[in-house]
Amino acid sequence: MEKRNKVFIATSLDGYIADKDGGMDWLHSVPNPDKVGMGYEEFIAQIDALVMGRKTFETVLSFGIDWPYQKPVFVLSNTLTEIPRKLKNKAFLVKGELKAVLRQIHKKGYPRLYIDGGKVIQGFLNEDLIDEMVITIIPTLLGSGVPLFSDLSDKLEFECVGSRIFLEKIVQNHFKRSK
Amino acid sequence: MEKRNKVFIATSLDGYIADKDGGMDWLHSVPNPDKVGMGYEEFIAQIDALVMGRKTFETVLSFGIDWPYQKPVFVLSNTLTEIPRKLKNKAFLVKGELKAVLRQIHKKGYPRLYIDGGKVIQGFLNEDLIDEMVITIIPTLLGSGVPLFSDLSDKLEFECVGSRIFLEKIVQNHFKRSK
Repeated sequence: MEKRNKVFIATSLDGYIADKDGGMDWLHSVPNPDKVGMGYEEFIAQIDALVMGRKTFETVLSFGIDWPYQKPVFVLSNTLTEIPRKLKNKAFLVKGELKAVLRQIHKKGYPRLYIDGGKVIQGFLNEDLIDEMVITIIPTLLGSGVPLFSDLSDKLEFECVGSRIFLEKIVQNHFKRSK
Repeated sequence: MEKRNKVFIATSLDGYIADKDGGMDWLHSVPNPDKVGMGYEEFIAQIDALVMGRKTFETVLSFGIDWPYQKPVFVLSNTLTEIPRKLKNKAFLVKGELKAVLRQIHKKGYPRLYIDGGKVIQGFLNEDLIDEMVITIIPTLLGSGVPLFSDLSDKLEFECVGSRIFLEKIVQNHFKRSK
């Protein structure tokens, strides 16, 4: 199966993934009483595993909810030394160069990956390792925060292959890398 | 007629309106041999005048083309002292507080305004004076540049009222201020 690295993330209208205090309440600024789905289930159905950074991993743990992922999660970290015991067969530490990490994950039988977390996405983009990005724009100008994108050594061309509006307010744009 | 302040601008996928050297060649990175329109004519038909900053004004002059605007252009500047003679009845210097400038322009009979230029848009947003933004995303990650948005003292809520894809690559999202 073809190897793909995909991003599925929400940003503010000014491109932030968290406010300046790390807060994400604004993600829910558009009321969604009927819990309209915004493509997440379909997206998840098409990936084999997740790759996330330590910070995203720790944020998920901090929610104090049941582990939300049914697929293997590879946690990129050079500092963590172990995964909490209760996640033993669910989350796995990986470290080192991204391309080597990818080879390792592919070898385990997971070609289609959900790449998550600001720093990790930026790292993957910097090595031109992202094939698709589904970006959901929550139409709030936060005015400051943690940006999704950061400096890149080279320009990267994408193309917008789809766009949908949810709840009459939120727009989701689907980009693929032009090759 | 209702007073409206509207933005119509293109950004890179990472939110820049010019690259780090001020360049805008990337705006044309998607080939458009048939010169497909992207809503600019319709947008211009619905405004009465333009408001732009000194830098945008000087950039337009630097193109060395015929003056491209059929509607009055108000140039916001505290440093310019005069408009080139050949633009005498086309462009007009304005200065001072934005709200006072707007009252002055409205009084002259121009209620629907095209607000253009990074700094000017940021200034208007900072005083919550923008009603609509049509943002055309050229799907290039530039990696650095001049951002469309900047720090704001308060969050501002918009809603996406429309989205179109052009040339199978470029997406244009239309936002209105939620009031």
